[in-house]
Amino acid sequence: MSTYEARLKALRDQMQKDGIDGFVVPICDEHMSEYVGDYAQRLAWLTGFGGSAGAAVVLKDKAAIFVDGRYTIQVRDQVDGKLYEYVGTADQSMIDWLRANAPEGSSIGYDAWLHTQEWVKSAEAKLAKKNANLVAVTANPIDAVWDDQPEPSLAKLDVQPDEFAGKSASDKRSDIATWLNEEGLDATVIAALDSVAWAFNIRGKDIANTPVPRGYAIVKADGSAELFVAPEKLTDDVRVHLGNAVALRDYGDFPKALTEYRDQKVGVDPERSVAAIFDQLTDAGAQIVKKRDPTILAKAIKNETEIKGHKAAQARDGAALSRFLHWFSQEAPKGGHDELSVAAKLAAFRGQSDKLMDLSFRTISGAGPNGALCHYSVNEETNRKIETGTLYLVDSGGQYRDGTTDVTRTIAVGEPTAEMIKRYTQVLQGHVALAQAVFPKGTTGGQLDILARQYLWADGVDYAHGTGHGVGAYLSVHEGPQRIAAFGGFAEPLVAGMICSNEPGYYKTNAFGIRIENLILVEARAVTGAEQEMLGFETLTFAPLERRLIDVAMLSAGQRQWVDDYHAKVRAVIAPQLEGADLGWLEVQTAPL
Amino acid sequence: MSTYEARLKALRDQMQKDGIDGFVVPICDEHMSEYVGDYAQRLAWLTGFGGSAGAAVVLKDKAAIFVDGRYTIQVRDQVDGKLYEYVGTADQSMIDWLRANAPEGSSIGYDAWLHTQEWVKSAEAKLAKKNANLVAVTANPIDAVWDDQPEPSLAKLDVQPDEFAGKSASDKRSDIATWLNEEGLDATVIAALDSVAWAFNIRGKDIANTPVPRGYAIVKADGSAELFVAPEKLTDDVRVHLGNAVALRDYGDFPKALTEYRDQKVGVDPERSVAAIFDQLTDAGAQIVKKRDPTILAKAIKNETEIKGHKAAQARDGAALSRFLHWFSQEAPKGGHDELSVAAKLAAFRGQSDKLMDLSFRTISGAGPNGALCHYSVNEETNRKIETGTLYLVDSGGQYRDGTTDVTRTIAVGEPTAEMIKRYTQVLQGHVALAQAVFPKGTTGGQLDILARQYLWADGVDYAHGTGHGVGAYLSVHEGPQRIAAFGGFAEPLVAGMICSNEPGYYKTNAFGIRIENLILVEARAVTGAEQEMLGFETLTFAPLERRLIDVAMLSAGQRQWVDDYHAKVRAVIAPQLEGADLGWLEVQTAPL
Repeated sequence: MSTYEARLKALRDQMQKDGIDGFVVPICDEHMSEYVGDYAQRLAWLTGFGGSAGAAVVLKDKAAIFVDGRYTIQVRDQVDGKLYEYVGTADQSMIDWLRANAPEGSSIGYDAWLHTQEWVKSAEAKLAKKNANLVAVTANPIDAVWDDQPEPSLAKLDVQPDEFAGKSASDKRSDIATWLNEEGLDATVIAALDSVAWAFNIRGKDIANTPVPRGYAIVKADGSAELFVAPEKLTDDVRVHLGNAVALRDYGDFPKALTEYRDQKVGVDPERSVAAIFDQLTDAGAQIVKKRDPTILAKAIKNETEIKGHKAAQARDGAALSRFLHWFSQEAPKGGHDELSVAAKLAAFRGQSDKLMDLSFRTISGAGPNGALCHYSVNEETNRKIETGTLYLVDSGGQYRDGTTDVTRTIAVGEPTAEMIKRYTQVLQGHVALAQAVFPKGTTGGQLDILARQYLWADGVDYAHGTGHGVGAYLSVHEGPQRIAAFGGFAEPLVAGMICSNEPGYYKTNAFGIRIENLILVEARAVTGAEQEMLGFETLTFAPLERRLIDVAMLSAGQRQWVDDYHAKVRAVIAPQLEGADLGWLEVQTAPL
Repeated sequence: MSTYEARLKALRDQMQKDGIDGFVVPICDEHMSEYVGDYAQRLAWLTGFGGSAGAAVVLKDKAAIFVDGRYTIQVRDQVDGKLYEYVGTADQSMIDWLRANAPEGSSIGYDAWLHTQEWVKSAEAKLAKKNANLVAVTANPIDAVWDDQPEPSLAKLDVQPDEFAGKSASDKRSDIATWLNEEGLDATVIAALDSVAWAFNIRGKDIANTPVPRGYAIVKADGSAELFVAPEKLTDDVRVHLGNAVALRDYGDFPKALTEYRDQKVGVDPERSVAAIFDQLTDAGAQIVKKRDPTILAKAIKNETEIKGHKAAQARDGAALSRFLHWFSQEAPKGGHDELSVAAKLAAFRGQSDKLMDLSFRTISGAGPNGALCHYSVNEETNRKIETGTLYLVDSGGQYRDGTTDVTRTIAVGEPTAEMIKRYTQVLQGHVALAQAVFPKGTTGGQLDILARQYLWADGVDYAHGTGHGVGAYLSVHEGPQRIAAFGGFAEPLVAGMICSNEPGYYKTNAFGIRIENLILVEARAVTGAEQEMLGFETLTFAPLERRLIDVAMLSAGQRQWVDDYHAKVRAVIAPQLEGADLGWLEVQTAPL
């Protein structure tokens, strides 16, 4: 089935066999993952849409695809408007569209392994007004017709040794067991892939850029656990590492295993567990207690070993980025380079370290106007030349066994305009204000967000994304629960040991994009005379800022001092790893302003 | 019944007659008011507690009183520990205490006219675990035994003329009717006293300092309304003003009137309506739709007439406060004055205007260590002398027909210490940072809150209250829905026309308190080159700051300029109303720093 028209028809035929009048197609997997494996790319297969967020609804005689503002243009390029109506989620939600378009009394299918229970309940309530039913399918109809659907990865698991994890898997299970006993629970389901990886000190290769294995776990109040992974992925090392207290079961046994918890009190995280998990437990007569996955906060608060490892990874990563920045400063103005070629060059510099396991996400390599697309993903068609008189924005990171990095630098190619300099300096002022923040224990990232925006706001401009996200320890580059943003996760207090990004930006449509991103560590801060426990940030990322884009006159004395101090630290950390021309360049770039 | 022991016994006897094993006693009225009339001061009558927030639970053989951290000391002074266990609400909520202490299978009574439905549901769920029932009483058992319970006020209603309201009551009803039609509702209940006053352009004298009448309203989709007030309170002027489209019914008819809405769709605000309203409508077969009271946002966004009136009230109020500040600067250092006497003097200065209707709340007059109690209410027993070497904090306001004011000034008596100066300056820096904020449409007060705290935080200190609250137009001095605070109402976007307070502070226990409070108006802000609609604040309050407490060296150039500009405006607004020594003093106080 090479055409999208044929695929859509095949799905509709299957829907008819399955007795449903519609089907909902999200981008999701059985673990509510942000990034999913190839086998779960059902929306892309069905429609051709290549974005990372979106959904489709297919009815008998019409269909629609739902994307947010980032993908308004892309969806029109990639998806056939004769087959699918384009709907912006800001204009109409998928459910509202369904309510408006589903025939009275129709049955709309969904795969309960790809949605939260909350989504199901809310959709059911809205469809009830049309006397339409939401029906959980017994098998995903796309899988039935997707003839060359990839198998889920069978890549081997790795052990994440205690020298990097800082805490043994048995100690982590013991903490979870303590929590289960405090909460009066018999067991808890751990469904999020990074939570499973963290709890068992294992890693995997099932999802690009995120070193997690596809697996579920159930941890019990006695400290034992069941771990559900495909047996082909297990090595002797992993079996020895996991030990006798972890019962190893096939990934496919998980639904049935849930039915073995009759009459037991089982904690389930409603944000991180799909509806099917609730359905299975309910049908089996288990008593579900909605509780946040107990690994979430423990995973976010890095231990001393993880912090030490992260710093080692950052030093290594900063040296690679610095070599790249030097190379770029020499080569880019000569012309002949483009977004793809320079991103490849940066990956090559990172790859010079034998400690690099993978990039931590697909590099955002944005030249000129492409830099203004803050979630830009370069491909052969969009690939732009690096031209003088433009800005180049590169957001990239590496996965190392000892830490996950994420850094953005914006570089002037040739002479920047006064506007570019003003905006870069305002973004820098916000970045510095957040980096310098001192705040009491209990403060949330939502409270701090404005610090990074205030200089842009004073000039009537802003950036349409959060200021910071959490980052994992050789895990997801986007990790909760904390965020530095006014909306979504804003209410989570920051705790010493959490790692966040600090990434204000400015994007001028069709012109240029600016972002300055370092990772920052929440740390206890001793303040003389303080009347309560105070926190602050330690900046973890080391690479020179673009001094040609800084208008020193706009900086306060304190901001200028921060930049000079930061550059001195960059020099101290990176210089020992460089030599020759790279070192000379670094010294110039990190000299006081 | 002169003793609290006798009152408690009488309540227990009544509980037995009513067949309940416990009773919950909040400080609340039938309108979820912040401040309640004397007839509703049931907690004070029962226990002697004089604070403005708290609750008691009485069981057959034990009882407890629940207060927050503000009242930890006061409750022990006022309430007999042999009769009531003291419980801090931070340690244990009333419901958790009840769950721990109510006997298995007991029936706990509550008055459904004094609690929200949400409270009832949450309490029911928690008590269910003890097999205990929450039972709505048919009559409040305290009213049955409170022999000298005051009658609700019968003070006459006043018309708030259009020249102050800026919009006629019929236009307001018409707006509500439009909203009802948009929402597909037949009617909406308006239960909050200030909403009723605002919607009908009426005022009352039933609650001290807040010019609202005790009444309910139901507005219908055809623009007509029912208004429920005691008939004794109506004058011919009010009847004429309300006109034929408003059916006047007795306050006591309201519960029955709700039963007349069978089969109708009725909007009810769950935050501002008591559980009994839901019960009555449900029993009557009405279809309840939970919706925010449609006057809330309209009331918060002041119209041009209200803004003009507010400014006139501020000019008048600022002159009275300035006269007081001059008097205080002359007289306080001489000794012989105390918190009560100076508060009376300030009230007398305000009273020199024949436009003053009332104070807008009970003046907070805090000398020395009493200034550190941020909700301090002076009485004969706590009354402190004004002594040199201390700070004096005065938070006060007036009710004028054209506006409601609320202002705090902190004054040094004699020579302030270096610590006092440092803290005052940090509070001032935060006040100025908020006053100078520029922010995009859609920004919430919760996002801005940190601007006022950042200078204190950098020094390891903070204040344990919100930075700002909304203020009514000759209505409640605390008015929602917006707040400038990280918690509670933080998510409401600020809209041009809203009035908020800007009141950071610092409180050193047993030593001194500092607060600087001006009211600020949200206004559209033209920013050259802005890429979106921007907002800012106009400061509305005019009275000199305490220049002897300002360390000019700590201020940025922009902050210093703000203070000088502010003082120039104070001079421009207030000087024409002063003469002689008052005028000379003002000129000195408002000279550039």
